[in-house]
Amino acid sequence: MATAASAYMKLLSMGTKIVAVGRNYAAHAKELGNAVPKEPVLFMKPTSSYLQNGGTIEIPYPLESLDHEVELGVVIGRKARDVSEAAAMDYVGGYALALDMTAREIQSNAKASGLPWTVAKGQDTFTPISSVLPKSMVPNPDDLELWLKVDGETRQKGSTKDMIFKIPFLVSYISSIMTLLEGDVILTGTPQGVGPVKAGQKITAGITDLMDIYFDVEKRRRQVGG
Amino acid sequence: MATAASAYMKLLSMGTKIVAVGRNYAAHAKELGNAVPKEPVLFMKPTSSYLQNGGTIEIPYPLESLDHEVELGVVIGRKARDVSEAAAMDYVGGYALALDMTAREIQSNAKASGLPWTVAKGQDTFTPISSVLPKSMVPNPDDLELWLKVDGETRQKGSTKDMIFKIPFLVSYISSIMTLLEGDVILTGTPQGVGPVKAGQKITAGITDLMDIYFDVEKRRRQVGG
Ligand SMILES: [Mg+2]
Ligand SMILES: [Mg+2]
Ligand SMILES: [Mg+2]
Repeated sequence: MATAASAYMKLLSMGTKIVAVGRNYAAHAKELGNAVPKEPVLFMKPTSSYLQNGGTIEIPYPLESLDHEVELGVVIGRKARDVSEAAAMDYVGGYALALDMTAREIQSNAKASGLPWTVAKGQDTFTPISSVLPKSMVPNPDDLELWLKVDGETRQKGSTKDMIFKIPFLVSYISSIMTLLEGDVILTGTPQGVGPVKAGQKITAGITDLMDIYFDVEKRRRQVGG
Repeated sequence: MATAASAYMKLLSMGTKIVAVGRNYAAHAKELGNAVPKEPVLFMKPTSSYLQNGGTIEIPYPLESLDHEVELGVVIGRKARDVSEAAAMDYVGGYALALDMTAREIQSNAKASGLPWTVAKGQDTFTPISSVLPKSMVPNPDDLELWLKVDGETRQKGSTKDMIFKIPFLVSYISSIMTLLEGDVILTGTPQGVGPVKAGQKITAGITDLMDIYFDVEKRRRQVGG
Protein backbone atom coordinates (compact mmCIF):
# COMPACT_ATOMS: atom_id res chain seq x y z
CA MET A 1 0.00 0.00 0.00
CA ALA A 2 2.82 2.41 0.87
CA THR A 3 4.40 1.63 -2.47
CA ALA A 4 1.15 2.24 -4.34
CA ALA A 5 0.55 5.54 -2.51
CA SER A 6 4.00 6.92 -3.23
CA ALA A 7 3.75 5.76 -6.85
CA TYR A 8 0.60 7.82 -7.20
CA MET A 9 2.14 10.88 -5.59
CA LYS A 10 5.11 10.51 -7.91
CA LEU A 11 2.73 10.46 -10.88
CA LEU A 12 1.55 14.00 -10.15
CA SER A 13 5.11 15.30 -9.71
CA MET A 14 6.05 13.89 -13.13
CA GLY A 15 3.45 15.96 -14.92
CA THR A 16 4.36 18.96 -17.03
CA LYS A 17 0.98 20.48 -17.67
CA ILE A 18 -2.50 21.14 -16.40
CA VAL A 19 -5.17 21.47 -19.09
CA ALA A 20 -8.30 22.97 -17.61
CA VAL A 21 -11.78 22.94 -19.08
CA GLY A 22 -14.01 25.97 -18.64
CA ARG A 23 -17.83 26.00 -18.57
CA ASN A 24 -18.25 22.23 -18.44
CA TYR A 25 -21.36 22.32 -16.24
CA ALA A 26 -24.36 24.12 -17.76
CA ALA A 27 -25.49 25.59 -14.42
CA HIS A 28 -22.05 27.12 -13.81
CA ALA A 29 -21.78 28.56 -17.33
CA LYS A 30 -25.11 30.28 -16.69
CA GLU A 31 -24.16 31.67 -13.27
CA LEU A 32 -21.26 33.56 -14.91
CA GLY A 33 -23.47 34.69 -17.79
CA ASN A 34 -21.71 32.52 -20.37
CA ALA A 35 -23.22 30.46 -23.16
CA VAL A 36 -22.95 26.67 -22.93
CA PRO A 37 -20.03 25.86 -25.26
CA LYS A 38 -20.24 23.69 -28.38
CA GLU A 39 -16.61 22.60 -27.96
CA PRO A 40 -14.64 22.38 -24.71
CA VAL A 41 -13.10 25.71 -23.63
CA LEU A 42 -9.45 24.88 -22.82
CA PHE A 43 -6.86 26.84 -20.89
CA MET A 44 -3.58 26.00 -19.20
CA LYS A 45 -2.35 26.30 -15.64
CA PRO A 46 1.32 25.74 -14.74
CA THR A 47 2.26 22.85 -12.44
CA SER A 48 4.01 25.47 -10.28
CA SER A 49 0.49 26.45 -9.14
CA TYR A 50 -0.04 23.13 -7.30
CA LEU A 51 -0.59 23.26 -3.55
CA GLN A 52 -0.63 20.09 -1.46
CA ASN A 53 -3.46 19.19 0.90
CA GLY A 54 -3.22 21.21 4.12
CA GLY A 55 -1.43 24.15 2.50
CA THR A 56 -2.28 27.84 2.40
CA ILE A 57 -3.88 29.47 -0.64
CA GLU A 58 -2.34 32.91 -1.17
CA ILE A 59 -4.34 35.93 -2.36
CA PRO A 60 -1.95 38.19 -4.30
CA TYR A 61 -1.82 41.93 -3.68
CA PRO A 62 -3.97 44.02 -4.17
CA LEU A 63 -6.82 41.49 -4.35
CA GLU A 64 -9.12 40.91 -1.38
CA SER A 65 -10.44 37.51 -2.46
CA LEU A 66 -10.16 34.64 -4.92
CA ASP A 67 -12.99 32.53 -6.31
CA HIS A 68 -13.08 28.81 -5.51
CA GLU A 69 -13.95 26.25 -8.20
CA VAL A 70 -13.98 22.61 -7.07
CA GLU A 71 -13.14 20.19 -9.89
CA LEU A 72 -12.40 16.56 -10.60
CA GLY A 73 -8.86 16.14 -11.91
CA VAL A 74 -8.09 13.34 -14.35
CA VAL A 75 -4.47 12.21 -14.07
CA ILE A 76 -2.95 10.83 -17.26
CA GLY A 77 -1.24 7.45 -16.85
CA ARG A 78 0.60 7.19 -20.15
CA LYS A 79 1.36 9.16 -23.29
CA ALA A 80 -1.81 9.91 -25.24
CA ARG A 81 -1.95 11.35 -28.75
CA ASP A 82 -4.99 11.08 -31.04
CA VAL A 83 -6.66 8.50 -28.85
CA SER A 84 -10.24 7.55 -29.61
CA GLU A 85 -13.07 8.12 -27.15
CA ALA A 86 -13.46 4.34 -26.94
CA ALA A 87 -9.83 3.83 -25.90
CA ALA A 88 -9.45 7.02 -23.83
CA MET A 89 -9.95 5.46 -20.38
CA ASP A 90 -6.88 3.24 -20.94
CA TYR A 91 -4.77 6.41 -20.73
CA VAL A 92 -6.20 7.55 -17.40
CA GLY A 93 -3.96 6.68 -14.43
CA GLY A 94 -6.12 8.02 -11.63
CA TYR A 95 -8.08 10.94 -10.25
CA ALA A 96 -7.54 13.84 -7.90
CA LEU A 97 -9.71 16.52 -6.37
CA ALA A 98 -8.53 20.03 -7.21
CA LEU A 99 -9.52 23.65 -6.78
CA ASP A 100 -9.17 25.92 -9.79
CA MET A 101 -8.60 29.14 -7.81
CA THR A 102 -9.43 32.18 -9.93
CA ALA A 103 -8.79 35.89 -9.61
CA ARG A 104 -12.22 36.67 -11.08
CA GLU A 105 -11.67 40.41 -11.51
CA ILE A 106 -8.45 39.84 -13.47
CA GLN A 107 -10.20 37.16 -15.55
CA SER A 108 -13.15 39.46 -16.31
CA ASN A 109 -10.80 42.22 -17.48
CA ALA A 110 -8.85 39.72 -19.58
CA LYS A 111 -12.03 38.40 -21.20
CA ALA A 112 -13.23 41.92 -22.00
CA SER A 113 -9.89 42.71 -23.67
CA GLY A 114 -9.57 39.38 -25.54
CA LEU A 115 -6.51 38.49 -23.45
CA PRO A 116 -5.37 35.17 -21.94
CA TRP A 117 -6.34 34.01 -18.45
CA THR A 118 -2.81 33.12 -17.33
CA VAL A 119 -2.45 35.73 -14.57
CA ALA A 120 -6.02 35.09 -13.38
CA LYS A 121 -5.54 31.33 -13.14
CA GLY A 122 -1.83 30.50 -13.01
CA GLN A 123 -0.35 32.00 -9.86
CA ASP A 124 1.40 29.93 -7.18
CA THR A 125 -1.07 28.11 -4.86
CA PHE A 126 -3.92 28.59 -7.39
CA THR A 127 -4.26 24.80 -7.89
CA PRO A 128 -4.72 23.12 -4.51
CA ILE A 129 -4.88 19.36 -5.18
CA SER A 130 -5.29 16.07 -3.36
CA SER A 131 -3.04 13.07 -3.76
CA VAL A 132 -3.92 10.79 -6.65
CA LEU A 133 -6.63 8.13 -6.28
CA PRO A 134 -5.82 5.01 -8.29
CA LYS A 135 -8.35 4.31 -11.03
CA SER A 136 -9.39 1.10 -9.26
CA MET A 137 -10.80 3.17 -6.38
CA VAL A 138 -13.03 5.19 -8.72
CA PRO A 139 -15.10 2.71 -10.70
CA ASN A 140 -17.57 5.35 -11.92
CA PRO A 141 -15.97 8.78 -12.39
CA ASP A 142 -19.12 10.01 -14.18
CA ASP A 143 -21.18 9.68 -11.01
CA LEU A 144 -19.22 11.41 -8.25
CA GLU A 145 -20.55 14.04 -5.90
CA LEU A 146 -18.14 16.97 -5.49
CA TRP A 147 -18.61 19.41 -2.63
CA LEU A 148 -16.90 22.48 -1.23
CA LYS A 149 -17.44 24.34 2.04
CA VAL A 150 -16.10 27.68 3.25
CA ASP A 151 -15.82 27.86 7.06
CA GLY A 152 -18.07 24.82 7.26
CA GLU A 153 -20.84 26.25 5.06
CA THR A 154 -21.66 24.45 1.82
CA ARG A 155 -20.96 26.58 -1.25
CA GLN A 156 -20.70 24.01 -4.05
CA LYS A 157 -22.28 20.58 -4.43
CA GLY A 158 -22.67 18.93 -7.78
CA SER A 159 -22.34 15.65 -9.60
CA THR A 160 -19.93 14.78 -12.37
CA LYS A 161 -23.06 13.37 -14.05
CA ASP A 162 -23.79 16.95 -15.09
CA MET A 163 -20.55 17.48 -17.02
CA ILE A 164 -21.34 18.59 -20.58
CA PHE A 165 -18.23 16.90 -22.01
CA LYS A 166 -17.47 13.58 -20.28
CA ILE A 167 -14.01 12.26 -19.43
CA PRO A 168 -13.48 9.94 -22.44
CA PHE A 169 -14.45 12.75 -24.80
CA LEU A 170 -12.16 15.24 -23.04
CA VAL A 171 -9.14 12.91 -23.11
CA SER A 172 -9.75 12.14 -26.79
CA TYR A 173 -10.38 15.78 -27.76
CA ILE A 174 -7.40 17.21 -25.89
CA SER A 175 -5.12 14.44 -27.20
CA SER A 176 -6.06 15.50 -30.75
CA ILE A 177 -4.68 18.98 -29.96
CA MET A 178 -1.65 18.21 -27.81
CA THR A 179 0.15 15.11 -26.59
CA LEU A 180 -0.82 14.27 -23.02
CA LEU A 181 2.02 12.82 -20.96
CA GLU A 182 2.24 10.71 -17.84
CA GLY A 183 1.28 12.83 -14.83
CA ASP A 184 -0.45 15.58 -16.81
CA VAL A 185 -3.78 16.62 -15.31
CA ILE A 186 -7.08 17.57 -16.92
CA LEU A 187 -9.29 19.74 -14.70
CA THR A 188 -12.81 18.91 -15.83
CA GLY A 189 -14.67 22.08 -14.85
CA THR A 190 -16.71 23.18 -11.85
CA PRO A 191 -20.37 22.84 -10.87
CA GLN A 192 -22.33 25.92 -9.83
CA GLY A 193 -21.82 27.83 -6.61
CA VAL A 194 -18.43 29.45 -7.25
CA GLY A 195 -17.73 32.50 -5.13
CA PRO A 196 -15.11 34.43 -3.20
CA VAL A 197 -12.96 33.35 -0.27
CA LYS A 198 -11.03 35.85 1.85
CA ALA A 199 -8.00 35.80 4.11
CA GLY A 200 -8.65 33.91 7.33
CA GLN A 201 -11.27 31.60 5.85
CA LYS A 202 -10.88 27.83 5.54
CA ILE A 203 -11.88 25.68 2.58
CA THR A 204 -12.81 22.04 2.84
CA ALA A 205 -13.76 20.06 -0.24
CA GLY A 206 -14.31 16.45 -1.08
CA ILE A 207 -15.61 13.67 -3.22
CA THR A 208 -18.44 12.14 -1.20
CA ASP A 209 -17.43 8.76 0.34
CA LEU A 210 -13.95 8.93 -1.21
CA MET A 211 -11.79 11.74 0.19
CA ASP A 212 -11.62 15.24 1.51
CA ILE A 213 -9.05 18.02 1.51
CA TYR A 214 -8.45 21.17 3.53
CA PHE A 215 -6.84 24.54 2.84
CA ASP A 216 -6.29 27.84 4.64
CA VAL A 217 -6.56 31.16 2.84
CA GLU A 218 -4.24 34.09 3.55
CA LYS A 219 -2.94 37.21 1.84
CA ARG A 220 0.32 36.58 0.11
CA ARG A 221 3.47 38.22 1.46
CA ARG A 222 6.11 38.78 -1.17
CA GLN A 223 9.42 37.30 -0.27
CA VAL A 224 12.18 39.83 0.27
CA GLY A 225 15.33 39.68 -1.83
CA GLY A 226 16.14 37.65 -4.92
CA MET B 1 32.33 20.85 -25.03
CA ALA B 2 30.21 17.71 -25.54
CA THR B 3 29.41 17.75 -21.84
CA ALA B 4 28.41 21.41 -21.92
CA ALA B 5 26.23 20.90 -25.00
CA SER B 6 24.35 17.95 -23.55
CA ALA B 7 23.96 19.78 -20.24
CA TYR B 8 22.25 22.60 -22.10
CA MET B 9 19.98 20.25 -24.03
CA LYS B 10 19.07 18.58 -20.75
CA LEU B 11 18.13 21.99 -19.31
CA LEU B 12 15.36 22.41 -21.87
CA SER B 13 14.02 18.89 -21.29
CA MET B 14 13.79 19.59 -17.53
CA GLY B 15 11.42 22.50 -18.03
CA THR B 16 7.74 22.26 -17.20
CA LYS B 17 6.43 25.44 -18.74
CA ILE B 18 6.70 28.01 -21.48
CA VAL B 19 5.53 31.49 -20.55
CA ALA B 20 5.09 33.58 -23.68
CA VAL B 21 4.85 37.34 -23.92
CA GLY B 22 2.51 38.89 -26.47
CA ARG B 23 2.86 42.31 -28.11
CA ASN B 24 6.37 43.00 -26.82
CA TYR B 25 7.51 44.87 -29.94
CA ALA B 26 5.54 48.02 -30.70
CA ALA B 27 5.70 47.54 -34.49
CA HIS B 28 4.26 44.01 -34.19
CA ALA B 29 1.46 45.11 -31.82
CA LYS B 30 0.50 47.68 -34.45
CA GLU B 31 0.57 45.26 -37.40
CA LEU B 32 -2.10 43.14 -35.65
CA GLY B 33 -4.13 46.22 -34.71
CA ASN B 34 -3.39 45.91 -30.99
CA ALA B 35 -2.57 48.64 -28.49
CA VAL B 36 0.92 48.68 -26.99
CA PRO B 37 0.42 47.08 -23.55
CA LYS B 38 1.12 48.80 -20.20
CA GLU B 39 1.93 45.44 -18.61
CA PRO B 40 3.28 42.31 -20.32
CA VAL B 41 0.58 40.16 -21.94
CA LEU B 42 1.32 36.60 -20.74
CA PHE B 43 0.10 33.27 -22.04
CA MET B 44 1.25 29.67 -21.68
CA LYS B 45 2.34 27.04 -24.17
CA PRO B 46 2.86 23.40 -23.14
CA THR B 47 6.34 21.88 -23.41
CA SER B 48 4.70 19.14 -25.51
CA SER B 49 4.63 21.75 -28.30
CA TYR B 50 8.45 21.78 -28.63
CA LEU B 51 9.94 20.71 -31.96
CA GLN B 52 13.68 20.18 -32.33
CA ASN B 53 15.76 21.84 -35.04
CA GLY B 54 15.25 20.10 -38.39
CA GLY B 55 11.76 18.87 -37.54
CA THR B 56 8.46 19.32 -39.35
CA ILE B 57 5.87 21.88 -38.25
CA GLU B 58 2.40 20.39 -38.61
CA ILE B 59 -0.64 22.40 -39.74
CA PRO B 60 -3.73 20.85 -38.12
CA TYR B 61 -6.87 20.11 -40.12
CA PRO B 62 -8.74 22.05 -41.49
CA LEU B 63 -6.26 24.96 -41.49
CA GLU B 64 -4.29 25.85 -44.61
CA SER B 65 -1.53 27.81 -42.85
CA LEU B 66 0.02 28.85 -39.56
CA ASP B 67 1.61 32.19 -38.72
CA HIS B 68 5.32 32.31 -37.87
CA GLU B 69 6.60 34.45 -34.98
CA VAL B 70 10.36 34.36 -34.40
CA GLU B 71 11.28 35.00 -30.75
CA LEU B 72 14.20 34.98 -28.38
CA GLY B 73 13.70 32.34 -25.66
CA VAL B 74 15.14 32.95 -22.21
CA VAL B 75 15.93 29.66 -20.45
CA ILE B 76 15.70 29.75 -16.66
CA GLY B 77 18.76 28.35 -14.88
CA ARG B 78 17.44 28.07 -11.34
CA LYS B 79 14.27 28.50 -9.31
CA ALA B 80 13.10 32.12 -9.38
CA ARG B 81 10.35 33.58 -7.17
CA ASP B 82 9.94 37.29 -6.47
CA VAL B 83 13.34 38.15 -7.88
CA SER B 84 14.21 41.80 -8.36
CA GLU B 85 15.00 43.28 -11.75
CA ALA B 86 18.56 43.91 -10.52
CA ALA B 87 19.10 40.22 -9.64
CA ALA B 88 17.05 38.73 -12.48
CA MET B 89 19.93 37.88 -14.81
CA ASP B 90 21.40 35.55 -12.17
CA TYR B 91 18.42 33.25 -12.79
CA VAL B 92 18.92 33.06 -16.55
CA GLY B 93 20.71 29.88 -17.63
CA GLY B 94 20.88 30.52 -21.37
CA TYR B 95 19.01 31.46 -24.52
CA ALA B 96 17.31 29.70 -27.39
CA LEU B 97 15.74 30.77 -30.65
CA ALA B 98 12.12 29.72 -30.95
CA LEU B 99 9.12 30.09 -33.20
CA ASP B 100 5.78 30.81 -31.57
CA MET B 101 3.63 29.19 -34.27
CA THR B 102 0.09 30.51 -34.18
CA ALA B 103 -3.21 29.45 -35.72
CA ARG B 104 -4.19 33.09 -36.29
CA GLU B 105 -7.81 32.41 -37.26
CA ILE B 106 -8.40 30.37 -34.10
CA GLN B 107 -6.68 33.06 -32.04
CA SER B 108 -8.80 35.83 -33.61
CA ASN B 109 -12.01 33.95 -32.82
CA ALA B 110 -10.82 33.29 -29.26
CA LYS B 111 -9.98 36.98 -28.75
CA ALA B 112 -13.38 38.05 -30.07
CA SER B 113 -15.10 35.65 -27.65
CA GLY B 114 -12.91 36.45 -24.63
CA LEU B 115 -11.54 32.90 -24.67
CA PRO B 116 -8.02 31.56 -24.02
CA TRP B 117 -5.44 31.10 -26.78
CA THR B 118 -4.49 27.51 -25.84
CA VAL B 119 -5.72 25.80 -29.01
CA ALA B 120 -4.31 28.60 -31.20
CA LYS B 121 -0.86 28.42 -29.61
CA GLY B 122 -0.39 25.09 -27.82
CA GLN B 123 -0.60 22.30 -30.39
CA ASP B 124 2.20 19.77 -30.95
CA THR B 125 5.06 21.22 -33.11
CA PHE B 126 3.86 24.82 -32.44
CA THR B 127 7.10 25.69 -30.61
CA PRO B 128 10.08 24.86 -32.83
CA ILE B 129 13.19 25.63 -30.79
CA SER B 130 16.98 25.58 -31.07
CA SER B 131 19.31 23.99 -28.56
CA VAL B 132 20.26 26.21 -25.63
CA LEU B 133 23.07 28.75 -25.95
CA PRO B 134 24.98 29.16 -22.70
CA LYS B 135 24.70 32.65 -21.25
CA SER B 136 28.43 33.15 -21.76
CA MET B 137 27.91 33.03 -25.54
CA VAL B 138 25.31 35.82 -25.42
CA PRO B 139 26.92 38.77 -23.64
CA ASN B 140 24.29 41.26 -24.78
CA PRO B 141 20.84 39.68 -25.16
CA ASP B 142 19.30 43.16 -25.54
CA ASP B 143 21.10 43.72 -28.81
CA LEU B 144 20.50 40.64 -30.95
CA GLU B 145 19.21 40.61 -34.51
CA LEU B 146 16.52 37.98 -35.05
CA TRP B 147 15.55 36.99 -38.59
CA LEU B 148 13.18 34.57 -40.27
CA LYS B 149 12.91 33.52 -43.91
CA VAL B 150 10.27 31.49 -45.73
CA ASP B 151 11.66 29.64 -48.78
CA GLY B 152 14.71 31.88 -48.59
CA GLU B 153 12.76 35.16 -48.56
CA THR B 154 13.14 37.42 -45.54
CA ARG B 155 9.87 37.86 -43.64
CA GLN B 156 11.00 39.04 -40.22
CA LYS B 157 14.09 40.95 -39.15
CA GLY B 158 14.23 42.85 -35.90
CA SER B 159 16.39 43.62 -32.93
CA THR B 160 15.80 42.67 -29.32
CA LYS B 161 16.68 46.34 -28.69
CA ASP B 162 13.08 47.08 -29.65
CA MET B 163 11.48 44.93 -26.96
CA ILE B 164 9.08 47.02 -24.87
CA PHE B 165 9.71 44.96 -21.72
CA LYS B 166 13.35 43.86 -21.41
CA ILE B 167 14.57 40.50 -20.12
CA PRO B 168 15.35 41.51 -16.49
CA PHE B 169 11.94 43.11 -16.15
CA LEU B 170 10.18 40.07 -17.67
CA VAL B 171 11.97 37.58 -15.38
CA SER B 172 11.20 39.73 -12.33
CA TYR B 173 7.57 40.36 -13.34
CA ILE B 174 6.77 36.75 -14.20
CA SER B 175 8.50 35.50 -11.04
CA SER B 176 6.16 37.72 -9.01
CA ILE B 177 3.21 35.83 -10.52
CA MET B 178 4.51 32.26 -10.68
CA THR B 179 7.65 30.42 -9.62
CA LEU B 180 9.98 29.90 -12.56
CA LEU B 181 11.88 26.60 -12.44
CA GLU B 182 15.07 25.31 -13.99
CA GLY B 183 14.49 24.71 -17.70
CA ASP B 184 11.36 26.84 -17.98
CA VAL B 185 11.36 29.13 -21.01
CA ILE B 186 10.15 32.69 -21.48
CA LEU B 187 9.32 33.56 -25.09
CA THR B 188 9.94 37.28 -25.31
CA GLY B 189 7.67 38.27 -28.18
CA THR B 190 8.10 38.74 -31.90
CA PRO B 191 9.18 41.68 -34.08
CA GLN B 192 7.02 42.75 -37.00
CA GLY B 193 6.58 40.75 -40.20
CA VAL B 194 4.53 37.80 -38.96
CA GLY B 195 2.60 36.00 -41.62
CA PRO B 196 1.40 32.64 -42.91
CA VAL B 197 3.39 29.57 -43.94
CA LYS B 198 1.84 26.72 -45.88
CA ALA B 199 2.52 23.03 -46.43
CA GLY B 200 5.63 22.46 -48.53
CA GLN B 201 7.36 25.66 -47.44
CA LYS B 202 10.59 25.80 -45.47
CA ILE B 203 11.39 28.14 -42.60
CA THR B 204 14.89 29.22 -41.67
CA ALA B 205 15.49 31.54 -38.76
CA GLY B 206 18.44 32.74 -36.80
CA ILE B 207 20.20 35.07 -34.46
CA THR B 208 22.68 36.94 -36.64
CA ASP B 209 26.28 35.71 -36.06
CA LEU B 210 25.15 33.18 -33.44
CA MET B 211 22.98 30.38 -34.81
CA ASP B 212 20.37 29.34 -37.29
CA ILE B 213 17.59 26.76 -37.36
CA TYR B 214 15.55 25.07 -40.06
CA PHE B 215 12.04 23.57 -40.23
CA ASP B 216 9.77 22.03 -42.85
CA VAL B 217 6.04 22.69 -42.89
CA GLU B 218 3.47 20.02 -43.71
CA LYS B 219 -0.19 19.28 -43.08
CA ARG B 220 -0.66 17.11 -40.06
CA ARG B 221 -1.87 13.56 -40.53
CA ARG B 222 -3.73 12.20 -37.55
CA GLN B 223 -2.33 8.96 -36.26
CA VAL B 224 -4.67 6.03 -36.65
CA GLY B 225 -5.69 4.03 -33.61
CA GLY B 226 -5.26 4.75 -29.91
MG1 LIG C 1 3.12 23.53 -18.46
MG1 LIG D 1 -12.41 26.00 -13.52
MG1 LIG E 1 4.47 35.28 -29.95
